[in-house]
Amino acid sequence: MAAAEETSKSSEAFPMKGGDGPNSYFKNSIYQRGAVDVAKQILNNEIAEKLDVEILLPSNTFSLADLGCSVGPNTFSAVDNILEAVRLKYQCQGLDSQIPEFQVFFNDHTLNDFNMLFKSLPPNRQYYAAGVPGSFHGRIFPNNSIHLFHSSSTNHWLSRVPKELVNKNCPAWNKGEIHYSNSTDEVVKAYEAQYAEDMECFLHTRSQEIVSGGLMVLIIPGRPNGTPHSKTLPNMMLQLLGTSLMEMARKGVVVEDKVDSFNIPAYYMSPQELEAAVERNGCFNIEKIENLPSPLGDGAAIGTRVLAYHMRAASEGLIKQQFGEEILDELFDLFCKKLEQKPSIFESGKGIYFLVVLMKRMPN
Amino acid sequence: MAAAEETSKSSEAFPMKGGDGPNSYFKNSIYQRGAVDVAKQILNNEIAEKLDVEILLPSNTFSLADLGCSVGPNTFSAVDNILEAVRLKYQCQGLDSQIPEFQVFFNDHTLNDFNMLFKSLPPNRQYYAAGVPGSFHGRIFPNNSIHLFHSSSTNHWLSRVPKELVNKNCPAWNKGEIHYSNSTDEVVKAYEAQYAEDMECFLHTRSQEIVSGGLMVLIIPGRPNGTPHSKTLPNMMLQLLGTSLMEMARKGVVVEDKVDSFNIPAYYMSPQELEAAVERNGCFNIEKIENLPSPLGDGAAIGTRVLAYHMRAASEGLIKQQFGEEILDELFDLFCKKLEQKPSIFESGKGIYFLVVLMKRMPN
Repeated sequence: MAAAEETSKSSEAFPMKGGDGPNSYFKNSIYQRGAVDVAKQILNNEIAEKLDVEILLPSNTFSLADLGCSVGPNTFSAVDNILEAVRLKYQCQGLDSQIPEFQVFFNDHTLNDFNMLFKSLPPNRQYYAAGVPGSFHGRIFPNNSIHLFHSSSTNHWLSRVPKELVNKNCPAWNKGEIHYSNSTDEVVKAYEAQYAEDMECFLHTRSQEIVSGGLMVLIIPGRPNGTPHSKTLPNMMLQLLGTSLMEMARKGVVVEDKVDSFNIPAYYMSPQELEAAVERNGCFNIEKIENLPSPLGDGAAIGTRVLAYHMRAASEGLIKQQFGEEILDELFDLFCKKLEQKPSIFESGKGIYFLVVLMKRMPN
Repeated sequence: MAAAEETSKSSEAFPMKGGDGPNSYFKNSIYQRGAVDVAKQILNNEIAEKLDVEILLPSNTFSLADLGCSVGPNTFSAVDNILEAVRLKYQCQGLDSQIPEFQVFFNDHTLNDFNMLFKSLPPNRQYYAAGVPGSFHGRIFPNNSIHLFHSSSTNHWLSRVPKELVNKNCPAWNKGEIHYSNSTDEVVKAYEAQYAEDMECFLHTRSQEIVSGGLMVLIIPGRPNGTPHSKTLPNMMLQLLGTSLMEMARKGVVVEDKVDSFNIPAYYMSPQELEAAVERNGCFNIEKIENLPSPLGDGAAIGTRVLAYHMRAASEGLIKQQFGEEILDELFDLFCKKLEQKPSIFESGKGIYFLVVLMKRMPN
């Protein structure tokens, strides 16, 4: 067997902001929570329809893994929703007495704040909890050991920044930008290639870890088919964050070279791109793929300040690493002002686009 | 199924000192490491002889749990020793090609420093790692899910201080003492009863979680059969720690009432007591029980300062809770002096006594 860490050591860690302070992911992830909530009904129906309870045999433990769980509380809602759906499935089939025990594996990067996660575990939970440190871009579970994978608001994170972006001699050098929505075709292609490689690796490793007939549910912030990257809300927000950094570079607060070599390793895929990746992998059948109703309504309704805090909780680890902690307050104040000055990015009347996909592991 | 936390909520948490600072358990546990090391040869032989590789069927994942793992590095040595022994067993039987995948569950209290543990995981480990938060005095794993339990230097910890000790109106009120070696018979009986209850609960919960034919290895700091509590090194050390606290109470540095109501929830069992508990439980067969050669030689050879630091790493959480952090340096300086002034406690020429026991889960 390959050591878990060996297969994943080439990926980098971008954990969400830990603890439960005002800037923490714990306190700034209601948007992601919204996605979990709106997906609930879909999951209830789909799991009831698609789950084959015989995949558990001969054991009677149902193993669920939440990939990229961060520190809670969203992961606990997602887990509760899924376990409720599984229990319903048993009850509807008249198998009340055979409802299994549940073991839930909470996975995230090794540097995730697992102490915080464990302290926040619901005290009256009806499952056995375990934390699994390591990148889901590599192997983290034994063969055939998981019955249902769930991951929400994680698959847009790439395993690393594409190398070409930081090479001054490369056509994909991403000068003055921190993402791809306002960049050259070469930059976009480098991001697309990294996404394709990462998704291939993600599906391949999961296909080994999941039992035959097991389900995988992914809730992914992405972009609708046919929508250009530059018209996608998260891309537009990252564009503004980049503009804020460049403004600080002009003022001499940060070094421009550092902005040139800084890139956010996130890619917002379309349903078509995901379908193509699943087809290339060949181990899963897509049982359902659909757009989620926008959680919490449109961006304007949520408020720019809340959105700015969300962006901070998710990205400050990366930014701190490159520019130091001392720029964070100024940067996100500036970013928040820029968001307020640009209500046009919410013009479409939509919030962040999420797609939900449910796939089943086909027999070998 | 009972919620994991529900069955264990009445036990208290006494995690070892986290992080990797000068007073941490990480830096002050070579003694416990010594016990793991001297047990290695015994385990190699015993696992080779007693492990039935068919307990894995039909899965091919070997699940090992280390209970009370703390933050490392000792747990990693213990795990490596055991996995080496299991691999040897397969190789000796000519089953090289069937060596299973390994999943290792690192368990400790929810307040244990799992972040530190996960950061310290050996990068080239040949197993999948998971952390399991919760007291091993309650259920922490699904039924029939573990093939081998290991626990080292943990079973002397009780789930709580016996209630009678802190009741002024009770004959077992433990005035002026923090342990039982210099106390009334009532105090000793209260400790013995708590030990018996905890060990019963420990064996009962493990008997549900382990597969039929699975093995459990415990390395326990205890006392030889027939040795009075007051002649056991850890008891004598705790006695000196109590004397130090009382001396600080006389100086007015701590409040005497707080010493009266403070008790260390640890009990040093004899092999006979352990055998009786296993017999009462009725689910395990003791395959081997023996005294370990004293790790690191006698106490005098190790040095009083090292022993004092070990005591601090293991007990400062408890002491801080009762008396505040500010007394720790003074207390352990005083304790160290008292140890130096009393070489007679090492007179027997022995260090801390450890017993190692290997049991097998009998079929239901």
